[in-house]
Amino acid sequence: MRNFKLTMQYDGSRYKGWQRLGSSDMTIQERIENVLIKMTGEKIELIGSGRTDAGVHALQQAANFKTKDQRSVKEIIAYLNAYLPEDIVIKRVEEVNERFHARYNAVSKTYMYRIWNHSYSNPFLRKHIVHIPEELNLVAMKQAACFLIGEHDFTSFRASKSKKKSNIRTIYSIEIHKNETIIEMMVHGSGFLHNMVRIIVGTLLEVGRGKMKPETVKYILDQRDRSLAGATAPAKGLFLYTIEY
Amino acid sequence: MRNFKLTMQYDGSRYKGWQRLGSSDMTIQERIENVLIKMTGEKIELIGSGRTDAGVHALQQAANFKTKDQRSVKEIIAYLNAYLPEDIVIKRVEEVNERFHARYNAVSKTYMYRIWNHSYSNPFLRKHIVHIPEELNLVAMKQAACFLIGEHDFTSFRASKSKKKSNIRTIYSIEIHKNETIIEMMVHGSGFLHNMVRIIVGTLLEVGRGKMKPETVKYILDQRDRSLAGATAPAKGLFLYTIEY
Repeated sequence: MRNFKLTMQYDGSRYKGWQRLGSSDMTIQERIENVLIKMTGEKIELIGSGRTDAGVHALQQAANFKTKDQRSVKEIIAYLNAYLPEDIVIKRVEEVNERFHARYNAVSKTYMYRIWNHSYSNPFLRKHIVHIPEELNLVAMKQAACFLIGEHDFTSFRASKSKKKSNIRTIYSIEIHKNETIIEMMVHGSGFLHNMVRIIVGTLLEVGRGKMKPETVKYILDQRDRSLAGATAPAKGLFLYTIEY
Repeated sequence: MRNFKLTMQYDGSRYKGWQRLGSSDMTIQERIENVLIKMTGEKIELIGSGRTDAGVHALQQAANFKTKDQRSVKEIIAYLNAYLPEDIVIKRVEEVNERFHARYNAVSKTYMYRIWNHSYSNPFLRKHIVHIPEELNLVAMKQAACFLIGEHDFTSFRASKSKKKSNIRTIYSIEIHKNETIIEMMVHGSGFLHNMVRIIVGTLLEVGRGKMKPETVKYILDQRDRSLAGATAPAKGLFLYTIEY
């Protein structure tokens, strides 16, 4: 069997997330699988690097699939982009070692969260950014973010319905930049629990608004209690940014 | 009566253009007028600098309206942005001389046309850009554009159903830039006939694709015959960019 790695971008606005849900075809995995099934005539399983939730975007998502199909890499990318909707774009197709697995082999991931920080919204970016009109204390947010760096039990920053056994993850860095009216938060880690980036962002925003002290983030982390952390920030500001293999 | 000038941005994707159409409220003029009527309790007429067609965007559109309302400029902008949909944003409100008229006083206008020039589409920009995968000969397009500079009868570059009496307009400049994968065409002129920018772009694209010689654009201009020029380029790539008063 040949094994192919796909690298893709998508606007998640109208999808129920990455993961196949059964009957609906409004997931990104299913949309791509359906085109691969049509192309190869085989039953294809597309393995993503991980899930993205409903409404979350990807500037770089990766996945792999196995096939007996003899098409070239160039033919596969052309076929996929011809049949996929405009909001899912395959950027690269590579033939990889048979043992490559898009989820197990992912070493780390970076997510980006984007905020439009201006009195009035931006009509052109509004579907891919979250509008926050108030001034935010970025220094306090950066201080708070430092408590999350390193290996920790992130139970407090995980969707409460999440069923994963271990809640221990490592965050390598959280960078917060402001360019004119756009704040970008880059979170780089070994892996992420369900909603983890959005809960981290929601909590740092409470700090930025002066409603929480930076040190409280350390307390929240130690308590392992989701109810202490901030709200889950909206999906539309979140982008899966890169996956390192 | 007080006279106010509004400067605004809008994403035209879901609207039937600027101009009020009667019963529907899916025009930008009506959406803003309705909020002004609610705010003042008066019958308000909003005068735009000119129309934009269905699906055309504005990075800067201007309009004026007269009222007896005693609100401050700050209160008016806050009221408008609170009640307008997210895809229409008022950037500035100024109290102006009673004789200021957004259409009659406009001295010149600049339109921008944006093209995504890459094999595959961009999922995030796709509603505000036109995707053209083929390589375009920008030098030939710039040569062709030169024939349109100056005062001319633009009958060949006007929607054929247009009823304006004079088809003479002046184009001051047409600039064509490419930054990585985005081509921006800036057209600055005294005023524009119906669909004029989009027909100019459609014609220059024929030149860029090698289907028309640059000199043919001069011939088309001289013939005053709409059927000789290129197709009307899609609305979603066009932005009203600035209006000079």
